[in-house]
Amino acid sequence: MKSFRLFSVILLAVLAYGIAGAQQSLRINTGIVSPEINPDKSVTFRYSNPAAGSVLLSGDCVADNVAMTKDADGLWTYTTKPLKGELYSYNFVVDGQRVLDPSNVYMTRDIAVWVNYFTLCAEPYDQGWYYEVHDVPHGNVSKVWYNSPTLGVDRHMTIYTPAGYEKGDKHYPVLYLLHGSGGDEDAWGDLGRAVQILDNLIAEGKAEPMICVMPNGVYFNQAAPGVAVSMFQPTTDNSRSSSTKEIEESFPDIINYIESNYRVIRDRENRAVAGLSMGGRQSCALSMRYPDMFGYVGLFSGVVPPKEASDFTALDSVFTASPKLYWIGVGKDDGVKANSDILRIYLNDKGYPYEYYESDGGHIWRNWRDYLIRFSSKIFK
Amino acid sequence: MKSFRLFSVILLAVLAYGIAGAQQSLRINTGIVSPEINPDKSVTFRYSNPAAGSVLLSGDCVADNVAMTKDADGLWTYTTKPLKGELYSYNFVVDGQRVLDPSNVYMTRDIAVWVNYFTLCAEPYDQGWYYEVHDVPHGNVSKVWYNSPTLGVDRHMTIYTPAGYEKGDKHYPVLYLLHGSGGDEDAWGDLGRAVQILDNLIAEGKAEPMICVMPNGVYFNQAAPGVAVSMFQPTTDNSRSSSTKEIEESFPDIINYIESNYRVIRDRENRAVAGLSMGGRQSCALSMRYPDMFGYVGLFSGVVPPKEASDFTALDSVFTASPKLYWIGVGKDDGVKANSDILRIYLNDKGYPYEYYESDGGHIWRNWRDYLIRFSSKIFK
Repeated sequence: MKSFRLFSVILLAVLAYGIAGAQQSLRINTGIVSPEINPDKSVTFRYSNPAAGSVLLSGDCVADNVAMTKDADGLWTYTTKPLKGELYSYNFVVDGQRVLDPSNVYMTRDIAVWVNYFTLCAEPYDQGWYYEVHDVPHGNVSKVWYNSPTLGVDRHMTIYTPAGYEKGDKHYPVLYLLHGSGGDEDAWGDLGRAVQILDNLIAEGKAEPMICVMPNGVYFNQAAPGVAVSMFQPTTDNSRSSSTKEIEESFPDIINYIESNYRVIRDRENRAVAGLSMGGRQSCALSMRYPDMFGYVGLFSGVVPPKEASDFTALDSVFTASPKLYWIGVGKDDGVKANSDILRIYLNDKGYPYEYYESDGGHIWRNWRDYLIRFSSKIFK
Repeated sequence: MKSFRLFSVILLAVLAYGIAGAQQSLRINTGIVSPEINPDKSVTFRYSNPAAGSVLLSGDCVADNVAMTKDADGLWTYTTKPLKGELYSYNFVVDGQRVLDPSNVYMTRDIAVWVNYFTLCAEPYDQGWYYEVHDVPHGNVSKVWYNSPTLGVDRHMTIYTPAGYEKGDKHYPVLYLLHGSGGDEDAWGDLGRAVQILDNLIAEGKAEPMICVMPNGVYFNQAAPGVAVSMFQPTTDNSRSSSTKEIEESFPDIINYIESNYRVIRDRENRAVAGLSMGGRQSCALSMRYPDMFGYVGLFSGVVPPKEASDFTALDSVFTASPKLYWIGVGKDDGVKANSDILRIYLNDKGYPYEYYESDGGHIWRNWRDYLIRFSSKIFK
């Protein structure tokens, strides 16, 4: 035992040598706690930079960029007011330059931009609670390649299977969950916290155990950065991103893969499709192209084509088949709210039943996570 | 068609509005290309910061931190000499502060520190080639939870199944691949590029199709940041990290999960264990604790306990069982080379057969990726 403790000391000394002497070596943290969630649910940020002239905190936990305060040691701090439960993302702005918090290992990617994040739970079952990991049964997450005969390539997707899937022979319903323009198969699982949302909703009995399939919805990308053959830099700044015809045409390749490789219930009442922004547009288009495929359709800030570019009469066959739920969610301040409005006018004129949820805020992940909680609690019931 | 093109213009305008108006919204890239791999395999880095007084490039593509040059527009640049094939990681140092490259979406985490990275292939089948994604059949990657009765908790691990696993009923050998102190179940798949290494080696016929299991080897962490219940900040700065007894004792829980849930060959000749640093120590200890379990053992810069803290006589039963391969790799400049040397002295004295590979360099991922190529090419043959 004594020799073991001695060994620990030797080991740490050896590791410290390794750290000092090597690149890509073992790393230690900064020794600074940032962010720190205080007992009153305010949050303190800290950043050491004695040379900086100005450091701002930028993020959705403050109304606008705010100046941090520097102490005599060059440590910059800022404390927010008490916050409500949410996943918050942020970065610092150091003398005008966007800088990530070196003391916070929690980072996530929004298309081409990395942000720091933290989750905060102010009370049980608030949004933050659903985004955190709790001591409940956890589903597994697979990143799989499927072949798309329609597109002539192998493509990558993320698949969530609920806790208990590996045991027994139960068959499950499937939610196909689509990201926005410039996104990829990592978006919903990472920044979207879909895995935690479904784990928690299912554990609470608020959602049915389901498989959730999150494909890559940009037709000219096979996969996310680091997994695709090309080391591309993702971007929304590409007019090709607005063409989703290829994904719509090849979508049966995805469904065929899932229904051949997973224990799923293969009928309309056990298939749902939902998506955010471009993925909402795709969900609308998929419902029209395959009216017998999906019993549940969700449009989250859906960029539905304006009436002059789209033949909404295809919706007639969707509603003739009586979908179990056609759900439309959008923020009051969302730049694409007009697109939802145009679709709703058509549905209202025809008397087609749908559910509409209008939230605060704009074209933001805070809304899309919340819409996922709401939508996934309503399906397969 | 015309209306569709008009729609694209409207869509982009709407998205631009969304970008300007929202947090956690769609993001666009910086418009700067960095890094750029030039035809001669030199690499140019670019970073815009008109206000900075000094910007250095820090990384393993330069011998030491080097000063970047500022132009009249405040764009800092540096071009390396031609590089050999490798995965390189880097960051900028702006007026003394570590800053990530905002133009490069490729980032990976080394314990608690994020780094930018790029892969470079100078010629086919160099190291860089193995770390890149090629148009070959790809294996799938699952992040699964298993219950450990020994530790009394659910724990998370990463499982690679080779291309073709889903089809047919073939049974596969299994490599258990362990990370270092402070690491987690993401380390080998991300910075270690184990998925790409195995995909490429198997496609080239240089490695046998195998399942690779990458568990979390820090006994007091359930899972990596973002997936664990606690929002901990990972660190190597914890003497508890040097205790691996709990992982050694509970390792059969991992093997039981794999052998119950995957089509694997359940004998010693089809099980390998290897690990880096602390994982090398665990691999050595596991080989001694379960001498009939593993036919192949790999120690990559293994932090084997010094002789006074360890009873190497347990190795006698390992070698009485004639392992197919006992492989030891370490760098000439590695601070833990002495640990390998102590073990090798014992093996030499006893006349036990093992393979030894001494590389350049220290306690670094560049070596561990290379050791994985070498080790995984030798096993299950």
